[in-house]
Amino acid sequence: MQIDNKHYHTIWHNSENDTVTVIDQRILPFRFETIELNTIEDAWHAIADMIVRGAPLIGVTAAYGLWLGIKNESVVTSELLKAKGDYLKSSRPTAVNLAIAVDQVIDAIGADYANAAEIALKEAYVVKQNEIDFCDAIGEHGVKLIEAISEKKKGETVNILTHCNAGWLACVDWGTATAPIYKAQLKGIDIHVWVDETRPRNQGAKLTAYELGEQGVSHTIIPDNTGGHLMQHGMVDLVIVGSDRTTRQGDVANKIGTYLKALAASDNNVPFYVALPSTTFDFNLKDGVKEIPIEQRDGAEVFAMEGVLNNEVVTTRIMPENSPVANYGFDVTPARLVAGLITERGVCEANETAITQMFNDKI
Amino acid sequence: MQIDNKHYHTIWHNSENDTVTVIDQRILPFRFETIELNTIEDAWHAIADMIVRGAPLIGVTAAYGLWLGIKNESVVTSELLKAKGDYLKSSRPTAVNLAIAVDQVIDAIGADYANAAEIALKEAYVVKQNEIDFCDAIGEHGVKLIEAISEKKKGETVNILTHCNAGWLACVDWGTATAPIYKAQLKGIDIHVWVDETRPRNQGAKLTAYELGEQGVSHTIIPDNTGGHLMQHGMVDLVIVGSDRTTRQGDVANKIGTYLKALAASDNNVPFYVALPSTTFDFNLKDGVKEIPIEQRDGAEVFAMEGVLNNEVVTTRIMPENSPVANYGFDVTPARLVAGLITERGVCEANETAITQMFNDKI
Repeated sequence: MQIDNKHYHTIWHNSENDTVTVIDQRILPFRFETIELNTIEDAWHAIADMIVRGAPLIGVTAAYGLWLGIKNESVVTSELLKAKGDYLKSSRPTAVNLAIAVDQVIDAIGADYANAAEIALKEAYVVKQNEIDFCDAIGEHGVKLIEAISEKKKGETVNILTHCNAGWLACVDWGTATAPIYKAQLKGIDIHVWVDETRPRNQGAKLTAYELGEQGVSHTIIPDNTGGHLMQHGMVDLVIVGSDRTTRQGDVANKIGTYLKALAASDNNVPFYVALPSTTFDFNLKDGVKEIPIEQRDGAEVFAMEGVLNNEVVTTRIMPENSPVANYGFDVTPARLVAGLITERGVCEANETAITQMFNDKI
Repeated sequence: MQIDNKHYHTIWHNSENDTVTVIDQRILPFRFETIELNTIEDAWHAIADMIVRGAPLIGVTAAYGLWLGIKNESVVTSELLKAKGDYLKSSRPTAVNLAIAVDQVIDAIGADYANAAEIALKEAYVVKQNEIDFCDAIGEHGVKLIEAISEKKKGETVNILTHCNAGWLACVDWGTATAPIYKAQLKGIDIHVWVDETRPRNQGAKLTAYELGEQGVSHTIIPDNTGGHLMQHGMVDLVIVGSDRTTRQGDVANKIGTYLKALAASDNNVPFYVALPSTTFDFNLKDGVKEIPIEQRDGAEVFAMEGVLNNEVVTTRIMPENSPVANYGFDVTPARLVAGLITERGVCEANETAITQMFNDKI
């Protein structure tokens, strides 16, 4: 997608000097900078320090990281690959994509150690291209929903609400929840996006608004408290969010606060869709509210706020010093509130029968 | 209530030097300072510049303001009183309490212009005392709900969630939504309060957390996105919020985001109560969602954030420079989601029959 009118992916291989470049997402939207990864250690730190974030992008970074780790080795062995892979997996142990991507590269190498580096680079590109293809397909399926609403509204603006950042910055290109939006823009559909700020880390205000703005998509940042009011007054036609984990019955774990928007959507007959690659399904789980563990994160994300003061990025304390804070990272939206799951294979109803039918081969 | 272990009201008359003192609420919770009001102009600015805020407190400040405006006048006339009253009413034209309080003082003076200053001071005290009595009564009625839950839980901690600041800082003492909480504390009931941060102005994190902390009430600040997750997991026993305007059928306008918490409470069988003095009723309105106009406020409240950096309070920009923001001040919670209205006369069901019966004399 676009930044400053130039086309970017979130990560790319530089064939000239055989390095990998990523966008430094820690300082967005305040500054746009890229960082060159020259070693496996650079890749490890890019993931651990959240220079890159978003499960798909972490996976691709790890895949390229493995290549960086072996490209200058004179002898590659199975043990070396395992050690390098384990090292990369330790950068953020909770992200499943990371381990899958690393293993995919190691599997591709197989026993062809002589050509390991060349194969690794090619496979990293496959991992990257797969992520793009998934998002592209999600966009193609999802845009039909937006088109249908646009037709029903006789071309009047379609208002879409989204929460957090399930955008291309979390992936490689297109994004998940944003893919149908970008596709709608390409088709010339009149759209406007309500962007939930997404406290406490403000990924909506910082990343989604930034990428929509760079892409020229009409949007408005709103406090997370606002969506219900907008829906009561017919100002939202469609909600699309991403997912961190989806159960076999269609319960959706996503950024904290998603459930509140799903309730408001349900109360006001606004269709609530979740865009996700099928890799997000956890077919072992059924009842998401009961079974999905919810991460509690550092309180500093709540009481400290990053912002710009005199062109410098500073962190301020925004609440009383002695008040405790709680910081739950995700919540679970029960399937009964979900109109459908926009996947790379098509839009799937959020229930066990539909999900297990569409993804039968993956279970 | 307490600040730094001393008992305070939000406003008081100093008999020694015949002035009025208020707490400077603009700089809470970062600094505690009081400001002396010596003239009617001081009172006007205290209201207009939000040194004082909250409808009840604004009313009391205006009542004392009128006294400040006439206490040094050698001749008081009906015209003078009207002019001074109109001046005060112009400080924040939307707050109904302000006009009511000013008119109450003018009415008390009647034609007794010779004793106008003395009467005004006494009546301002009456306005102030009435606000305290209302909150006190709301507390007494509301604490019974907390007691009942505590008994049912066999003395285990009662978890109460509140949104925004309907605390004593918005009133004179006790507060509205907080009055039952402070009364519960006095009765030794084990309570814990989940304090919604309340973006964009953060009155929960800044004021409610501050006053609960100073009062020694156990509490935790949470992002506004969190309440639904807590309710899904049985971590909230009761929601109590305030109200800015309540219709005759029990629809409640309150700080933006209240509706989302009411939906979550309803979805999880958590009782959702609204604490309000009967002065908050607007008996002319019925359907709150359709009829209550919702104020749109300055976008700076959304994109700029106040916080402490190196012991100084600074304001930073926390989102992209070019993204538009929207800032709706309130939303409306339909009566069907409200378990009851905690008023100074008792707990009233949120429907037209119950409301018009209990407040028959006021309609």
